[in-house]
Amino acid sequence: MSTPSRRPPKPAPLRAGATREKLLAATHALLRERVGGPVSVNEICARAGANVAMVKYCFGSKDAMIAALIERIVSGFVAELDELDARGLSASARLRIHVAEIVRNYVRYPYINRLLSMQLSGGGAAGIASLSRNFAIPVRDWYRRLLADGRNDGEFRAIDPTLFFFTVIGLAEFLVTAEPLLRGFDIDRIDADLLDRYIRHVTEIVLHGVQTHPASSTAVAAHRR
Amino acid sequence: MSTPSRRPPKPAPLRAGATREKLLAATHALLRERVGGPVSVNEICARAGANVAMVKYCFGSKDAMIAALIERIVSGFVAELDELDARGLSASARLRIHVAEIVRNYVRYPYINRLLSMQLSGGGAAGIASLSRNFAIPVRDWYRRLLADGRNDGEFRAIDPTLFFFTVIGLAEFLVTAEPLLRGFDIDRIDADLLDRYIRHVTEIVLHGVQTHPASSTAVAAHRR
Repeated sequence: MSTPSRRPPKPAPLRAGATREKLLAATHALLRERVGGPVSVNEICARAGANVAMVKYCFGSKDAMIAALIERIVSGFVAELDELDARGLSASARLRIHVAEIVRNYVRYPYINRLLSMQLSGGGAAGIASLSRNFAIPVRDWYRRLLADGRNDGEFRAIDPTLFFFTVIGLAEFLVTAEPLLRGFDIDRIDADLLDRYIRHVTEIVLHGVQTHPASSTAVAAHRR
Repeated sequence: MSTPSRRPPKPAPLRAGATREKLLAATHALLRERVGGPVSVNEICARAGANVAMVKYCFGSKDAMIAALIERIVSGFVAELDELDARGLSASARLRIHVAEIVRNYVRYPYINRLLSMQLSGGGAAGIASLSRNFAIPVRDWYRRLLADGRNDGEFRAIDPTLFFFTVIGLAEFLVTAEPLLRGFDIDRIDADLLDRYIRHVTEIVLHGVQTHPASSTAVAAHRR
């Protein structure tokens, strides 16, 4: 894929801060290469050019380092929603851009779904609460506002935002989660062309899926006359 | 959930056949209770009332037993498609029933997505080929026929069946895969009411998502006059 690795958004002026960033970048790079498969602390530190003691010093533990990477990534997803709101677009236009962006994010971080699954199944109540607070709730609340705007403007049908969260995230993540199945369809990998086609495909399904259909409204109006 | 465990479809007259069925049923029950978390051979055999040597005797290994369970389940998914074809329904009606049934299947086998992920990431080329042959390809080919029928009848837009496979399976599985996130939305679990609401929600999204919209056709027709 040609999608670049994202740079950490903030400068890290202190030495520990710089090492922290290097460790997160190395973890990202190795998880990406192995599509979420196991990566050891030694490998991460070798890639980062850091002493293995720095994982404990910077994060407390490997699990906490992984949790910090997850939080960094999902915070980025949520920040994009705020940026999108600032552009003054219609609900349909925002939804179209959002669906494309969330699919691109899963391709950019192809290991994120496996990390999230591990945190959901093994992270206990604290792991679930953290993911809800940093990801699921802000995204669902954004859908609630978006869907209400679309409904008020007559663009959208009435849609439950919580159910919509599971729908949109599910259709965005599964292509990446199940990428090995592409080989059964004689497709080697998710290249730029496939990604563009998938984005057009799911965007149309979601947009048509939530939009009111003028024909039906017309039919109803005709019937009422 | 009140969805019952499925019974193996064939009678097993021989002693090894009966033990094989008991071991698969015990594996299903334990995986379901632990939502895909680790389950040992000892626990499975204790639940099945079978000697631990029977796993090797009946299947060859624990991994092969899990693979047999996966194959049993996904073969059931595919058999439902053939049954649906035999009912002589319109493409929209078949798609509506199928989406509901695939969501129900993920709830019935809440561990299946994790097993599939493990087989895709750890099962090598043989595991991927087996899943493609037994699941992905027959389902995608069914979508191809369904989408062509819907297109010929003027019900559906032109939709790529391979991309549609990832879309439908993704939006069907994610509610179950990410079930712990429901707690962040103050929902305890997937009960019968939530399942019904989710099925109505995704069915409407998918149906509206693929259907042609008479208003647009009318607009085009009016423009052409």
